[in-house]
Amino acid sequence: MVIVMKPNSKESEIKEVSKVVGSLGLRVHISQGTERTIIGIIGDKRRLGDVPLELMSGVEKLVHISESYKLSGKTFKPEPSVIDVNGVKIGGKELVMMAGPCAVENREQILETAKAVKKSGAQFLRGGAFKPRTSPYAFQGLEEEGLKLLAEAKEATGLLVVSEVTSERAVEIADKYVDMFQIGARNVQNFQLLREIGRSKKPVLFKRGTATTISEWLNAAEYIMNEGNYNVILCERGIRTFETATRNTLDISAVPVVKNLSHLPIIVDPSHAAGKSVYIDALSKAAIAAGADGLIVEVHPQPKKALSDAAQQLSPDVFNQLCKDIEGIAKIVEREFKYGG
Amino acid sequence: MVIVMKPNSKESEIKEVSKVVGSLGLRVHISQGTERTIIGIIGDKRRLGDVPLELMSGVEKLVHISESYKLSGKTFKPEPSVIDVNGVKIGGKELVMMAGPCAVENREQILETAKAVKKSGAQFLRGGAFKPRTSPYAFQGLEEEGLKLLAEAKEATGLLVVSEVTSERAVEIADKYVDMFQIGARNVQNFQLLREIGRSKKPVLFKRGTATTISEWLNAAEYIMNEGNYNVILCERGIRTFETATRNTLDISAVPVVKNLSHLPIIVDPSHAAGKSVYIDALSKAAIAAGADGLIVEVHPQPKKALSDAAQQLSPDVFNQLCKDIEGIAKIVEREFKYGG
Amino acid sequence: MVIVMKPNSKESEIKEVSKVVGSLGLRVHISQGTERTIIGIIGDKRRLGDVPLELMSGVEKLVHISESYKLSGKTFKPEPSVIDVNGVKIGGKELVMMAGPCAVENREQILETAKAVKKSGAQFLRGGAFKPRTSPYAFQGLEEEGLKLLAEAKEATGLLVVSEVTSERAVEIADKYVDMFQIGARNVQNFQLLREIGRSKKPVLFKRGTATTISEWLNAAEYIMNEGNYNVILCERGIRTFETATRNTLDISAVPVVKNLSHLPIIVDPSHAAGKSVYIDALSKAAIAAGADGLIVEVHPQPKKALSDAAQQLSPDVFNQLCKDIEGIAKIVEREFKYGG
Amino acid sequence: MVIVMKPNSKESEIKEVSKVVGSLGLRVHISQGTERTIIGIIGDKRRLGDVPLELMSGVEKLVHISESYKLSGKTFKPEPSVIDVNGVKIGGKELVMMAGPCAVENREQILETAKAVKKSGAQFLRGGAFKPRTSPYAFQGLEEEGLKLLAEAKEATGLLVVSEVTSERAVEIADKYVDMFQIGARNVQNFQLLREIGRSKKPVLFKRGTATTISEWLNAAEYIMNEGNYNVILCERGIRTFETATRNTLDISAVPVVKNLSHLPIIVDPSHAAGKSVYIDALSKAAIAAGADGLIVEVHPQPKKALSDAAQQLSPDVFNQLCKDIEGIAKIVEREFKYGG
Repeated sequence: MVIVMKPNSKESEIKEVSKVVGSLGLRVHISQGTERTIIGIIGDKRRLGDVPLELMSGVEKLVHISESYKLSGKTFKPEPSVIDVNGVKIGGKELVMMAGPCAVENREQILETAKAVKKSGAQFLRGGAFKPRTSPYAFQGLEEEGLKLLAEAKEATGLLVVSEVTSERAVEIADKYVDMFQIGARNVQNFQLLREIGRSKKPVLFKRGTATTISEWLNAAEYIMNEGNYNVILCERGIRTFETATRNTLDISAVPVVKNLSHLPIIVDPSHAAGKSVYIDALSKAAIAAGADGLIVEVHPQPKKALSDAAQQLSPDVFNQLCKDIEGIAKIVEREFKYGG
Repeated sequence: MVIVMKPNSKESEIKEVSKVVGSLGLRVHISQGTERTIIGIIGDKRRLGDVPLELMSGVEKLVHISESYKLSGKTFKPEPSVIDVNGVKIGGKELVMMAGPCAVENREQILETAKAVKKSGAQFLRGGAFKPRTSPYAFQGLEEEGLKLLAEAKEATGLLVVSEVTSERAVEIADKYVDMFQIGARNVQNFQLLREIGRSKKPVLFKRGTATTISEWLNAAEYIMNEGNYNVILCERGIRTFETATRNTLDISAVPVVKNLSHLPIIVDPSHAAGKSVYIDALSKAAIAAGADGLIVEVHPQPKKALSDAAQQLSPDVFNQLCKDIEGIAKIVEREFKYGG
Repeated sequence: MVIVMKPNSKESEIKEVSKVVGSLGLRVHISQGTERTIIGIIGDKRRLGDVPLELMSGVEKLVHISESYKLSGKTFKPEPSVIDVNGVKIGGKELVMMAGPCAVENREQILETAKAVKKSGAQFLRGGAFKPRTSPYAFQGLEEEGLKLLAEAKEATGLLVVSEVTSERAVEIADKYVDMFQIGARNVQNFQLLREIGRSKKPVLFKRGTATTISEWLNAAEYIMNEGNYNVILCERGIRTFETATRNTLDISAVPVVKNLSHLPIIVDPSHAAGKSVYIDALSKAAIAAGADGLIVEVHPQPKKALSDAAQQLSPDVFNQLCKDIEGIAKIVEREFKYGG
Repeated sequence: MVIVMKPNSKESEIKEVSKVVGSLGLRVHISQGTERTIIGIIGDKRRLGDVPLELMSGVEKLVHISESYKLSGKTFKPEPSVIDVNGVKIGGKELVMMAGPCAVENREQILETAKAVKKSGAQFLRGGAFKPRTSPYAFQGLEEEGLKLLAEAKEATGLLVVSEVTSERAVEIADKYVDMFQIGARNVQNFQLLREIGRSKKPVLFKRGTATTISEWLNAAEYIMNEGNYNVILCERGIRTFETATRNTLDISAVPVVKNLSHLPIIVDPSHAAGKSVYIDALSKAAIAAGADGLIVEVHPQPKKALSDAAQQLSPDVFNQLCKDIEGIAKIVEREFKYGG
């Protein structure tokens, strides 16, 4: 970190700042410019804690030189992390495909979907059991009953299961049924939940918030990793912008940016970003071409009858064709995906 | 709601849509344009539930004519709500002032602040006990110990107490100590927490999320009100935009917009919006001039020693001058505030 | 368009609105809902001009059912437009590749670049002659001298030339040298310039503004087309959002959205969106995978010595490898690109 | 400026960077941290021009310590600028009020408006002659004829005249009629136009763009000032965000931020920010309470008959009441405004 002093800061102010920094066990390096003096801080900046240096007399501002996340960053671990989820490796050469309905609705629906997506090449079944919905008048999910149906579908197909948890209570319940937890966009900074997940060690699919910068997202991942759970898979799912043609704006650049800053795998959720099934095919291919480690796509056996987010779910046929195309693009970007159709 | 059919939709498609709508106990009204046919839906649109009309053959899109929130809207209750919090009325002629430190740190700090802000005219003491912080390495709050100190300060000064709750467990604990719950920006769509608060009947200060439209915010308030708790006070605290000169962009227009759409009171938090104490005075005055029902401002006896968000806390002296100015502006906009300095 | 009346609007207000609409040669269709009456307008809504219906007594709001652009929309022309630029077809099966330096600097630089990108498969040479720069202290372009060098490079390689015009004067000068005009993001709503271009009939590469919705962009294209110039090629180049890891946020969804709403071709400029050369490869592939009709990429023989936007220019070698990958992805999405390396 | 080297940068890379910086007549100051080396640059950073230091081997990124604008910043001129426009001082103790219709429509309209706003206390008459409109099918302004009518209204009332110029040609024409040019939001980075205005010396009302940060805005002002015209008055008029309840989001914080960073006066345009007349009163008061040096408000004798932006224009009566309230708020914030009603 660098402390920028005001244009006319006094010698005594510079000394005072240096003294405070020194008292925290850090060293300073003073550099006199033509207009301003800047004070470089040498050492682990976490030692500064919440000391409000920016309020000291003569200080103009603080400038962060390195990011404040550590465990999720490349400086901590330069080579990419490959995360093993009960046998399926995420972040390696092979791409991962997660698919399933927005919400688990009933046995028939989830079994039919599971069989279809398995056939096309998916390794994971997704399905919401705890559904936080924007309107309190909408379908809110089957909760534990839904998780049991997911487990049944896993039994029948061999697919692994990923499902969202929205509270500490949900974590406890879901732990018995899922192979991977999912933290949704709305909970990206629900730090209590993140710590709870951090203590569980089970892999977690960690979605970006719609108003979260990539830097804040990596800092939030730090909450999970700091508790000892390094099995974090990031998931870009669109950010909030002024454009309303799509539900959110898929930040496709997040894929190469995360690859540049972090060792964690990153997959893309085109369904929530687009909000309309007609755009999902294009965004899915774009994500893989951009270097994503996989996709999580909403598929429903009869999209027109879905109880939630019907507009953004693919039919099994459309999903099957998508998987075929993904196999082709994977090769061009030196990845692998086994289309099973 | 209006269903817009595609330019070349067929007679049979229009009939099919009408049939489905009719089967839900709603009536339709068909209007043939030069380019498109539109189908108006007559009746309570909640009956449509999650039926995916937009996926029906021939349908181009759905256009919402009225907002989906009911209880928080002016159609439901045209006159402004005045909420009584243990004797202090919010939303009436008198303005409300809530002040105190970002986080409760120790007895001395909170008592000193309470006495100072009470003297200037505040009716509420604020102070964080459960502190969700962006970095896991930062101070996380005193939890129940902090709430006890707030209660002690209340005892000593007569100020009412408002404090943030971040989980169902926190609601249970805080219920014993606070006069009003606060839901922070990060939990604006934590629907489980909202429902929990809804069941409690205690007044709640409900902050807008940084990526939440006003319409979505009023929909989220519906989660609380739908459980029977109508004592909701809205709080604008800045939204996320591309501008980085301030921590967030205070959406001052939210004040007149909410007054136009809703009967709920709205106050403003200039501290979190600005993120820098130097801007808080200007934004506070702007908020009252724009018609806000009050303010919640961060005040710390020694901002330079604050353990969290030091940069945005006012000293008691600066706060005192602000209260004096607020008294003056209140008169111009036909409100009242008793400056006590 | 639909006029939504207030919940308690009077019979006389509805009649008055209907009368005004009728007097403009349009018909109305009234639909009585449970809460509100809505008035559908039948006929060409351009007849409404600027008549402020939303200010009439009893009116709550106007709701647009169809978009206000006509010529750029699919209702006007359902099949995709293929635009012939002196022999190169844009919008058909073959992809178009435009490449070259941010700014034309000197003969050697532009000739070297032209030869290199031609060899890799590009059909167009790009290069800025009129350079609007954020700081007045930066290099501002060679103006006509730069255009002459582009023409010389065209002569030497057979590449077509595209270059930005920033004023009516620049249009006049550039007309002699370029095969296609480029309108930059900052001029997306410079309507005087758009009309000037509209009168010229020469094809135009029309970039989206950083704060322009897709709907506004298509409306702006209408300014050009309305003058008789239908040879418009859209170019997505990133929008302004809160994320700062990239210069702008590439709105990759704009590709399928434009394909859905408009018949105009759309290409992608990954260089200005990313602002950093390290991300251009990933974004270029994503754009083609998403269905873009081509790319415009900044290439400089020695990026480290570029006089403007050095950080976002590719070396000829990196560009060559990119072209090879594009050839592969093109096949998967049923397009064609002839890699020449 | 500070150059941040990569974690494992080599001694030779640091030397090479230092050599390049030194060759430009600047000095370096090297600071060895625990993780990274940083190189401070001492001297006028404009000497760096476009040298792409960020592409040099071993360099991670450049961090700007001071802003790149000079003439518009407080370091250049710490005390506020008071700009004299033919006798009316802007930026001093007295507030300035500019009012008038969106577009000049005819003699009667502009004379009636001028007399009304003069009576309420306005010092400036505004009115658009060159109207850049989003749709090509809308009213485009009376051009020179409109300017003549403004001059006539000036003659009749003594009000000064401000009107927008959208091209170099418009500058030439308007120069004969107006006391102050206006640069609209769409032209905030039309650098050719800014330079033209810079050469004219006539005061200019310089609106912020809807996607322009405050820092970029001050940089753009630099284009005007760099040509010798220091008579720049800034005008905040709303930025583009995800919120759609208002046309744009008024960034009220821009007022204190600009006061903190720049010596230039700043006024607020609530009409374009809100887009709806019902919100203009609240936003106007907020702007003055926040410390703005004045307002520019749209007023039309018969808003319902306005030819452009009818929804956002105030009637003379509503404007008159607003002026009365502004007089009251002005006193509280130690400013003056003479309400004349």
